Amino acid sequence: MGLKSFVDVSADSHFPLENIPFGVFRPKTAGGDDHSLVVETPRPGVAIGDFVLDLSVISSAGLFDGPFLKKSQCFNQPSLNLFLEMGRPTWKEARATIQKLLSADEPSLRDNLSLRKKSLLPMNDVEMLLPVVIGDYTDFFCSMYHTKNCGLIFRGPEDPILPNWFHLPVAYHGRASSVVISGTKITRPRGQGHPIGSSPPYFGPTKKLDFELEMAAIVGPGNKLGKNIDINEAYDHIFGLVLLNDWSARDIQAWEYVPLGPFLGKSFGTTISPWIVTLEALEPFACDPPKQVRIKPAGQEQASVITKSNFKHLYWTITQQLAHHTINGCNLRSGDLLGTGTISGPEQDSLGCLLEITWNGKNKLSLNGSSQTFLEDGDEVIITGCCEGGDYKIGFGTCAGKVLPAITENQ
Amino acid sequence: MGLKSFVDVSADSHFPLENIPFGVFRPKTAGGDDHSLVVETPRPGVAIGDFVLDLSVISSAGLFDGPFLKKSQCFNQPSLNLFLEMGRPTWKEARATIQKLLSADEPSLRDNLSLRKKSLLPMNDVEMLLPVVIGDYTDFFCSMYHTKNCGLIFRGPEDPILPNWFHLPVAYHGRASSVVISGTKITRPRGQGHPIGSSPPYFGPTKKLDFELEMAAIVGPGNKLGKNIDINEAYDHIFGLVLLNDWSARDIQAWEYVPLGPFLGKSFGTTISPWIVTLEALEPFACDPPKQVRIKPAGQEQASVITKSNFKHLYWTITQQLAHHTINGCNLRSGDLLGTGTISGPEQDSLGCLLEITWNGKNKLSLNGSSQTFLEDGDEVIITGCCEGGDYKIGFGTCAGKVLPAITENQ
Ligand SMILES: [Ca+2]
Ligand SMILES: [Ca+2]
Ligand SMILES: [Mg+2]
Ligand SMILES: [Mg+2]
Ligand code: NI
Repeated sequence: MGLKSFVDVSADSHFPLENIPFGVFRPKTAGGDDHSLVVETPRPGVAIGDFVLDLSVISSAGLFDGPFLKKSQCFNQPSLNLFLEMGRPTWKEARATIQKLLSADEPSLRDNLSLRKKSLLPMNDVEMLLPVVIGDYTDFFCSMYHTKNCGLIFRGPEDPILPNWFHLPVAYHGRASSVVISGTKITRPRGQGHPIGSSPPYFGPTKKLDFELEMAAIVGPGNKLGKNIDINEAYDHIFGLVLLNDWSARDIQAWEYVPLGPFLGKSFGTTISPWIVTLEALEPFACDPPKQVRIKPAGQEQASVITKSNFKHLYWTITQQLAHHTINGCNLRSGDLLGTGTISGPEQDSLGCLLEITWNGKNKLSLNGSSQTFLEDGDEVIITGCCEGGDYKIGFGTCAGKVLPAITENQ
Repeated sequence: MGLKSFVDVSADSHFPLENIPFGVFRPKTAGGDDHSLVVETPRPGVAIGDFVLDLSVISSAGLFDGPFLKKSQCFNQPSLNLFLEMGRPTWKEARATIQKLLSADEPSLRDNLSLRKKSLLPMNDVEMLLPVVIGDYTDFFCSMYHTKNCGLIFRGPEDPILPNWFHLPVAYHGRASSVVISGTKITRPRGQGHPIGSSPPYFGPTKKLDFELEMAAIVGPGNKLGKNIDINEAYDHIFGLVLLNDWSARDIQAWEYVPLGPFLGKSFGTTISPWIVTLEALEPFACDPPKQVRIKPAGQEQASVITKSNFKHLYWTITQQLAHHTINGCNLRSGDLLGTGTISGPEQDSLGCLLEITWNGKNKLSLNGSSQTFLEDGDEVIITGCCEGGDYKIGFGTCAGKVLPAITENQ
């Protein structure tokens, strides 16, 4: 029997009282009248069922009365960075306070109707924003199955997994400016594609637009330049996890990536889910949050599930990734985003991207009657993830994005 | 005959009235008395001779009276990002106003002694800070000589320059958090080094610490995600240039970089010079700013010049780099840093890093009597650069950093 809130939470909700994921939102303004141009300030919130609890309102009402949060302005900010910097004792205090406030037995919020009205907003009435200012985004390459498949596709059967891979978590620096929130449309990128044989490279809209099913850790307290974070302390530097879609243009990537790694084949967009699920909420499920990807093809009403994978398919853990990231003295900052890399499992129906699923376009993907290889204009990619236990789910919500056509010279 | 300022500027100064480079500084506080703990706010300034002109003071005094700057708060900011976002017409107005104010014939600042005292500070009395908040740092790979030498060293004589190189400016995403201002000490990074033959990789302080002689463009107005910046408009998105030292650990880099590019071999530190020299100041010199690197070895008084290179050795220009960066729709933001890549020339004495100069440690570098291959603890690397014309120099000042020993397990 799970915890009980006075807010109605349906049995299949991703956001029961056990979850309490953190995000940043802005109330949608109704428009019209005299205040149609008011844009509300972004502020932190948590999800409970189909509602968002506005933490700036709760904080201003003096309901965060523990030692860490009593005098803090961390919930009167347009991002979670300051809260994340404060560390795990503060996070635990916030979680305990919020779980108590929302519980069925606690009258302080339940019976204060004006505060309830002000602080609990239906999810449909808010716009979700990036939860953190991302100083740097790093993407790892930590699923052995994905690594092996990429090696087989790009380099052939000899040594598909390179010798360094089992010694350290391979990663590259990603582009922070183009990380966007779920729902943001992604314009098909243009670029130079890999030439076939000895022909010159072509230029135009990518012909191999792909998604990558990933999760990402959000960094809490950072470290000073020149110091490292020990593996045994890495856990306390991770606030929580989101879903991540590392959109990729395979033809651009294949041509540009030697010898310095992926650049324009990735930097046109990376989508994350809006709610950061804390490690506290995930603890009962250890390393077992399964995820799935659906594609809703252009012109179809229904989305088809095309793959189901699992966080447990990572060879290197997120704490190993974080410790490795700082072993050279590289400084992390609160809000940094550490992508896990594409999470592929061992079976055909657990592969984490179309490059693998279609084996670089050789095999077609059947979608509710139609078929295709890579993503087409108008396709929507929807990633969801959820831990399922006995009584309740800890869900990540969705990480979704729709493909817009490439821009043309005249635009 | 150059322009004349009422501020004394020596003939060999990097910062005559023709230069007017922009930076961010903080007055050093005298300490003692009742204000020993006051930390002054960072604010924008320009360099003139051995002085810094405090633009926040000039702005507050109402001396920026042109249409773009009259009502702007861009010089009452701790970084130049807002000013950079405003674009070239604003930059030109600022330059014209400042050049007039500092000229020998103009009485408004010259004859206002209290304002002169408040606004003109000796360089020795200020601390220079990072001039911009760097959202993303990209490093290109645009010197053909450097590219060829790296190919020869790492992969051998067959195709040292890969086929994509002449078709697009190759680049990778760098680490923004560890970009530091000239003078910041760099701790020798630890990491896994490339194993020799079939032995396992070693772990420890890097044995191949290197510098890379580069310059970097600072981005002015950015672009929206999904839109690109045309090559013909790229110039107006570049505010100016700084010197850049891309510190590199060659043994870590060589082991980790396949297939996703450099990561920990670079991310422990990147040093830039504090003064951004504008494209306006550089215009009379077209593409000809030569640069040199000196090393001051641990325990020696004198620094030795070890290489002299030139900006003209770049195959791809900075406007080509910027246009390429956005062709896929990737959004740039004001303050972004675009490194040129190591600038090597064709001769032995114009190579831009120790990897090339010592041919990966095979040949020794002679420094004022002593000799070494890569950088040793206590070494200081000093990069300077300067355009020399008839009457005056347009200089970049220095980009310097000293190597600290690696941390040990007990620290
Ligand atoms: Ca990825
Ligand atoms: Ca470099
Ligand atoms: Mg991407
Ligand atoms: Mg570096
Ligand atoms: Ni209204």
